[in-house]
Amino acid sequence: MQERLSVELEKSYRLLNHGPTVLVSSAHGGKQNVMAAAWSMPLDFSPPKVTVVIDRNTLTRELVEASGEFVLNIPTREQARATLAVGSKSGRETDKFVEVGLHALPGAKVGAPLIEGCLGWLECRVIPEPHVQQRYDLFIGEIVAAWADTRAFRNGHWVFEEGMPRSIHYIAGGNFFETGEAFEIERD
Amino acid sequence: MQERLSVELEKSYRLLNHGPTVLVSSAHGGKQNVMAAAWSMPLDFSPPKVTVVIDRNTLTRELVEASGEFVLNIPTREQARATLAVGSKSGRETDKFVEVGLHALPGAKVGAPLIEGCLGWLECRVIPEPHVQQRYDLFIGEIVAAWADTRAFRNGHWVFEEGMPRSIHYIAGGNFFETGEAFEIERD
Repeated sequence: MQERLSVELEKSYRLLNHGPTVLVSSAHGGKQNVMAAAWSMPLDFSPPKVTVVIDRNTLTRELVEASGEFVLNIPTREQARATLAVGSKSGRETDKFVEVGLHALPGAKVGAPLIEGCLGWLECRVIPEPHVQQRYDLFIGEIVAAWADTRAFRNGHWVFEEGMPRSIHYIAGGNFFETGEAFEIERD
Repeated sequence: MQERLSVELEKSYRLLNHGPTVLVSSAHGGKQNVMAAAWSMPLDFSPPKVTVVIDRNTLTRELVEASGEFVLNIPTREQARATLAVGSKSGRETDKFVEVGLHALPGAKVGAPLIEGCLGWLECRVIPEPHVQQRYDLFIGEIVAAWADTRAFRNGHWVFEEGMPRSIHYIAGGNFFETGEAFEIERD
C-alpha cells in the first residue's frame, strides 16, 4: 500500500520544477481518462499554478473543458510503459485504465482521479483562458491540493530513497531519461 | 572550441522536451542580459513554439518586450553554478556575463546572444499575447533557429557522449538534478 502525504500548496510547484513528464487525469459525467504530457510546467508560486498542453482532439480535452479540473500525476520509471501507452491510445476507443493497468484513486478537491503508484499528484482547477486554450491548446490550472509518496518527497523536498523508482522525462519515440543524480551548488 | 550544428526546426522541440532548466538570453539597445528559468516548455511542433515565464521585475523582461526576441540556452552541469548565479542576481545591478564568466556568441536570426558552452540553443521570436504576458508573466515564442553541441545532440537525438556534461533540472535553493540514464520502451 502506497503511503501518501499532503504537500503544502506553497511548495507544491517543486513536484514539477525539475520538468518530469506527467500523466493528466480527468473525469466528467461518469467518464474518466488519462493521457501523458511532456509539456507542462509550473507557472506561479502563490497561488500555485501550472500550465499544460492538452491537444484539442483528445478525450482528455473534452473532460477537462467540461469539468474545469484535472490532475497532474508524476509517474515513476516503472510506469514508463504505461506512460507511453496512455500517450498513444485514445480514451475514446478504449478504457485506458483497464487496458494499461492503471488504478484510479479519488482526489480530495477535484473529481479527476489520482493514478496509483505515482510519485506525486497535483489536483488542479482550470483558470479559464479561452483564447490560449483555443489558439495554443494551453491550459492554466491552479493547484488546489497536492500529494506525494512519502518515500519520494518529504518536507518540500525530493528524497528518492534507495530502490525507489524515480521520475521520468520523455524525449520522443519510446525514449526517456530517468531523473538523475541530485547535486547541490553552494550559493556565493 | 565548441562545435555547433544546426537543428532542423521540426525536431528542435526535442532539445527542451525532457524539461531541462534553461538560460534565457536577451538583448536590446546595446544592453544584453541572461537569466535562469526552470519554467519553460515546448508548446507546439510546427511551427515550433515554446513558452517561458519571465518575471515582470527583471531586466530580461524589459529587453524581451523591447526586442521581441529571446534565446533559450540549455546549460550543462558544469554551468550549474553560473545558472544559479544568473538566477539570483539582477542584470540592472551588474553585467552578469562578466561577473559570472559567461561568454555571449551571436545568434543567426535574432539579436539575443547564444551562451557559449551550452548543449543547445533555441532562437525565438515572441508571438505577442499581451494578456497572458501581463497576467501570468507567460511568453510564447516561435523557434526560428536551433543549434546543438555536436557531442550532445545529433540527427534529432540527444547522444550524451562519455565524459560530456549533461543537462540539469533545477529544484530549489542550490539543488539540481542531472539528466539521468536514457532508456527505451518498446511500443506494444
